[in-house]
Amino acid sequence: MKKGLLLVISGPSGAGKGTICKSLLEQNSNINLSVSATTREPRPGEVEGVNYYFLEKEKFKSMIVEGEFLEHAEVYGNYYGTPKAKVMEKLNSGEDVLLEIDIQGALKVKEIYPNGVFIFILPPSMEELKSRLEGRGTETKEAMLRRMESAYHEIEYVFKYDYAVLNDKVDLAVKTIESIIEAEKARVHRQENILEEF
Amino acid sequence: MKKGLLLVISGPSGAGKGTICKSLLEQNSNINLSVSATTREPRPGEVEGVNYYFLEKEKFKSMIVEGEFLEHAEVYGNYYGTPKAKVMEKLNSGEDVLLEIDIQGALKVKEIYPNGVFIFILPPSMEELKSRLEGRGTETKEAMLRRMESAYHEIEYVFKYDYAVLNDKVDLAVKTIESIIEAEKARVHRQENILEEF
Repeated sequence: MKKGLLLVISGPSGAGKGTICKSLLEQNSNINLSVSATTREPRPGEVEGVNYYFLEKEKFKSMIVEGEFLEHAEVYGNYYGTPKAKVMEKLNSGEDVLLEIDIQGALKVKEIYPNGVFIFILPPSMEELKSRLEGRGTETKEAMLRRMESAYHEIEYVFKYDYAVLNDKVDLAVKTIESIIEAEKARVHRQENILEEF
Repeated sequence: MKKGLLLVISGPSGAGKGTICKSLLEQNSNINLSVSATTREPRPGEVEGVNYYFLEKEKFKSMIVEGEFLEHAEVYGNYYGTPKAKVMEKLNSGEDVLLEIDIQGALKVKEIYPNGVFIFILPPSMEELKSRLEGRGTETKEAMLRRMESAYHEIEYVFKYDYAVLNDKVDLAVKTIESIIEAEKARVHRQENILEEF
């Protein structure tokens, strides 16, 4: 049985990875989105196992100790993480799994599962990034400047990734990611059983 | 200026690399087929610089000595080779170049230009390979058996390549190669100037 691909789609805040992943999933029903675990309270409308796995803090901490996360982080007192077992189960049954994740998380996943496909989404330009962050309208000017500066520094992490995809037009970025998936499946190191078929 | 890709398409005799390359070139006018040099006589209809560069044996030998071939071989007293300068010129001007070449040649190219994209074409099965070689109708039974045996051993070289593409349906194989090209262009190590754009 050929293993599925672990697709890790990552990039700076405002690069548009959310929009790209949504469109990629809509057009490729065979790709499974990994569901994160969190200790924060569910918001109205959020469904257990769809938006998140909602866990008690004690449970989450014991899972950290047992090494049951591919990556995890604490943000404003709440924990977030990617449960390893669910992802591995899908991969081992030949299904592809998509992780949409920030850069710190992606680099942790790479340590544990270097065989993943690590894709960095680039904003088309700093100007465009600024206008996207402004478009969200949820930030003070100072917070926005901090986010811009942080995004700029985050872009340097692109060299830790396998692929860099420019998010100029969402459709083109999605098409490039689909090509990356097809190409990765044709990689010799992912087809160890080639010779057995002859 | 971003360098073009050197696509090396190779595989055992009868795998169908010729058909695949023809179709790939027809559908992608931006890919340049590398023209080989040879010391054999032109056949009727063959055009200098299109089918081959036809060279005198002395000239060919001095080019070997000067290291002016990416690879070369002697077959039944004639020399065949890939002139390095022509290929490098195209690559440096950002154009993609296709080499359709046997396995020995591909491995030599890999030593000199490991940054190429090495694609191995697999026949769908040994049965299908047999019927293809038979279809050519140009061989004795003994010669055919030798070719089958040699093809079988050649398939083991697949592990020296980056990609293995099954030639079950030509159209699908060409589509996979097009995806490989698109994916390779998105590879981080081929986009060294990413950061300069920000």
